[in-house]
Amino acid sequence: MSIIMFNKSAILSILLVFIPLSIASEYLEWGASITFITAGLAIVPLAAFMGQATEEIAVVVGPNLGGLLNATFGNATELILALVALNEGLIGVVKATITGSIVGNLLLVMGFAMLLGGLRYKEQKFQSLAANVNASLMNLAVIAILLPTAVQYTSSGIEEQTLQNLSVAVAVVLILVYGLTLLFSMKTHAYLYEVGIAAEDESAEEDGANVNLTKWITILLLVTLGVAIESELLVNSLEEATSSLGLTALFTGVILLPIIGNAAEHATAVTVAMKNKMDLSLSVAVGSSLQIALFVAPVLVIAGWLLGQPMDLDFNPFELVAVAVAVLITNSISSDGRSNWLEGTLLLATYAVIGLAFYFHPVVEGLG
Amino acid sequence: MSIIMFNKSAILSILLVFIPLSIASEYLEWGASITFITAGLAIVPLAAFMGQATEEIAVVVGPNLGGLLNATFGNATELILALVALNEGLIGVVKATITGSIVGNLLLVMGFAMLLGGLRYKEQKFQSLAANVNASLMNLAVIAILLPTAVQYTSSGIEEQTLQNLSVAVAVVLILVYGLTLLFSMKTHAYLYEVGIAAEDESAEEDGANVNLTKWITILLLVTLGVAIESELLVNSLEEATSSLGLTALFTGVILLPIIGNAAEHATAVTVAMKNKMDLSLSVAVGSSLQIALFVAPVLVIAGWLLGQPMDLDFNPFELVAVAVAVLITNSISSDGRSNWLEGTLLLATYAVIGLAFYFHPVVEGLG
Amino acid sequence: MSIIMFNKSAILSILLVFIPLSIASEYLEWGASITFITAGLAIVPLAAFMGQATEEIAVVVGPNLGGLLNATFGNATELILALVALNEGLIGVVKATITGSIVGNLLLVMGFAMLLGGLRYKEQKFQSLAANVNASLMNLAVIAILLPTAVQYTSSGIEEQTLQNLSVAVAVVLILVYGLTLLFSMKTHAYLYEVGIAAEDESAEEDGANVNLTKWITILLLVTLGVAIESELLVNSLEEATSSLGLTALFTGVILLPIIGNAAEHATAVTVAMKNKMDLSLSVAVGSSLQIALFVAPVLVIAGWLLGQPMDLDFNPFELVAVAVAVLITNSISSDGRSNWLEGTLLLATYAVIGLAFYFHPVVEGLG
Repeated sequence: MSIIMFNKSAILSILLVFIPLSIASEYLEWGASITFITAGLAIVPLAAFMGQATEEIAVVVGPNLGGLLNATFGNATELILALVALNEGLIGVVKATITGSIVGNLLLVMGFAMLLGGLRYKEQKFQSLAANVNASLMNLAVIAILLPTAVQYTSSGIEEQTLQNLSVAVAVVLILVYGLTLLFSMKTHAYLYEVGIAAEDESAEEDGANVNLTKWITILLLVTLGVAIESELLVNSLEEATSSLGLTALFTGVILLPIIGNAAEHATAVTVAMKNKMDLSLSVAVGSSLQIALFVAPVLVIAGWLLGQPMDLDFNPFELVAVAVAVLITNSISSDGRSNWLEGTLLLATYAVIGLAFYFHPVVEGLG
Repeated sequence: MSIIMFNKSAILSILLVFIPLSIASEYLEWGASITFITAGLAIVPLAAFMGQATEEIAVVVGPNLGGLLNATFGNATELILALVALNEGLIGVVKATITGSIVGNLLLVMGFAMLLGGLRYKEQKFQSLAANVNASLMNLAVIAILLPTAVQYTSSGIEEQTLQNLSVAVAVVLILVYGLTLLFSMKTHAYLYEVGIAAEDESAEEDGANVNLTKWITILLLVTLGVAIESELLVNSLEEATSSLGLTALFTGVILLPIIGNAAEHATAVTVAMKNKMDLSLSVAVGSSLQIALFVAPVLVIAGWLLGQPMDLDFNPFELVAVAVAVLITNSISSDGRSNWLEGTLLLATYAVIGLAFYFHPVVEGLG
Repeated sequence: MSIIMFNKSAILSILLVFIPLSIASEYLEWGASITFITAGLAIVPLAAFMGQATEEIAVVVGPNLGGLLNATFGNATELILALVALNEGLIGVVKATITGSIVGNLLLVMGFAMLLGGLRYKEQKFQSLAANVNASLMNLAVIAILLPTAVQYTSSGIEEQTLQNLSVAVAVVLILVYGLTLLFSMKTHAYLYEVGIAAEDESAEEDGANVNLTKWITILLLVTLGVAIESELLVNSLEEATSSLGLTALFTGVILLPIIGNAAEHATAVTVAMKNKMDLSLSVAVGSSLQIALFVAPVLVIAGWLLGQPMDLDFNPFELVAVAVAVLITNSISSDGRSNWLEGTLLLATYAVIGLAFYFHPVVEGLG
């Protein structure tokens, strides 16, 4: 166990070297592809440290404020990356990152967790009631993306302003629902999530006794700065780099960027699944998707409205199909509160099929 | 309890004043908006009395004939309203009312019932087997609307006559299924629905000992006449009124009219949910939706065919999306046989998102 | 029991007479319609004997190799029929047969099994865990058809070559998943399927003690030859016959051909359901659908690629809707591990609605 931990830390430390490399590549003009790759690799350890710092601070400030902190900044890397892209007017990249984060967390992270956990344990169980509430929340998220897209496709010409007004109104509903979900899971029905919380506390205690609050806040601020900087390098080099690598911007946004932003969460979800803590593993994977769908995406819609960028919930229909399909199969697999290696394989196979479809998809409509 | 009952009766009695007001408005030409609003408010108490009279007669004639009566005339208000609109050729309004009744019963009524019930009881249970059968029936209803619409959208030009023939054939299948469902729930598998029926009998006995059959049949006939009259005022003033109020006919048909027609059922479902009788509460909400989808809608298709009106099951695709989405989230939430306040909130949030989408939807395609 | 068996054999033997009749019709030029009908009827007993021979051989060679044999050749009739049509370039007929086999097995076969079983037993139970895994597998199959179709519909012009490359890649993923599913159901989690296998062994022993391996292999080869021959007669007369019978090729491919190819399986699934062996009954119906979706369809895509035929997974959108709808309602009904006659009726009603929609569907886009 400690060997794995050491290895994980070691890998993250080594990846830090890409921070100076990416900055050097930008200013010495080594080319967009090299800037893109080095900045992408540099974000991985920064995202991990950001997550760790948030958790450490959460332990000190207590479960309520800490839970809120985790719930708000748990996907800070994706949020910063998306805000930078939004500010540059790369609406398509922002939407693709949202799509990819949801799809990647549900299929890739949960798939590996169920597969690797299932290879060790014949059958793994988790709270089906919490899974049921999460399934309904994910369905609401799909509906919230589906309806504005459907409004556009079923009307003969709609003004962008109307679509953005609708999206802002829907975003407010989603943020309210997210807030009520926190109230539900932390206060009124916390017992449904007890298993997960207990396990989380335990793992927190393992790593982080005698926490130094000031230290972690300083680290959080520094790391946040690092992510902002690297996000800008990544976003600025995105278009040139992807075209020179022969990839579409859609594929990059939906498949590559989310893998970079969620690498640390992948590791956590898989590690705890292999310890048979499926509740915690699923809460990392599904919780992260819910946070993207019910908090990050609505915040970006409202931010786009404030920044004067035409950010709305009218997604590329193929992205919508991908999210709907990911939610469908995840809900189908998690509905009975049990998992096995074949179900993990099914999630990964769905991810593979979606990835192939995005790879072969010829259109970059609305991207960039 | 008796205070609430008194208040409900008092409110209904006060609303009766809108019957003469609406007729006055029509003949003294106070304007379409005033006729529309007063006729709308006048229908609320009439619908409530019609429901009460049906139930009272059902008690006297015994469970079998009574159940059939309830199952046939339970949504008589919506049926009359729709027949009047159909006769005027307002096919779009008829379809919008069907959509809105299904969506409103599943999301608004069930949502408030689960929310308000859930605020009083931490967790409420209901028969998951009956919920499962209902979920499959609702899925069939969605399929029956989806397929004719899909036939039109996947073919390059289809004659209205072909579409109507298909719709009439599908309508016959749906009415057969509805009849078999009554056989299932009242005869062969009545034990699955026992809790609900027992509770219903109880509440019936509370209100209606010493029933006078003749009295209630007279009331039913008078009230039915009132609804026909008011429906015509409502339908005739609809187009002018909505446009002067700045609303689209689609929004009015899907959101406003069903709230008027179902107001009494809302009250019943929420009241029994707050007494922790979730089986009865859901049977009112889901049962009403099923009746609309498997009985009222097919009857209207066949009536349209007889009246020479081009009424079919080819709905506005956005209405189809709304119904599908409502059924999806309802089934997702009711599948485990338990409810809590957050699940009620999710239904209401979905209703809010759908309502917003219809409000901002620019197209009135096929309406009027 | 033995009377039913005798009758079944007798009917099959009588149907053999259509083999010489169909050949006579072809060479004596009695007309395409007669060739089509006689060849169709001739395939029914051949398909049944092919299934019987496969099972007999499977008993001799042992459960592992036998299971693999059954899993590979269980739908050999459909595969041969489709390969003949594919070779003639009738891509539309191939896709329609795939659609129809999936829809027919899930709705018609399972519907009759649940209805007739449910008329005898008030409530029938089956392994809900296996049903849950099957539901997820069927969802994956829908996704695999949906995504290539969605890629085409959401892009403004895609080359057939790209679509075929995507389809071949997806086909490889599906065949891998099918292989892993066999590993799961026969090796690592065989206990989930024990009931079904035990029952299957039992029925196998009833019929097939003292098996003669050489005899059955000879029969299998002869019967396979017969199916190839008759398939060619059927495919060659298809277009002329259907148009002279007033049917569209789409309706024939989706509704008529699969009924011919699956007639024997229908009989088996219904017979065992009436003996209350629902696990076995569902494994015949769902297993056959899964085999078509995860093995036969991908093999045909790869065969089309090798034969230079533009066979891909981009289906007629209406076929996609039909498959999705069939999977939706099947999963909804089987999710709770119990069935009754109303649920069987619902499946049949859905099949009726789909059949009506195909009957009235005016377009034969991409067929032939």
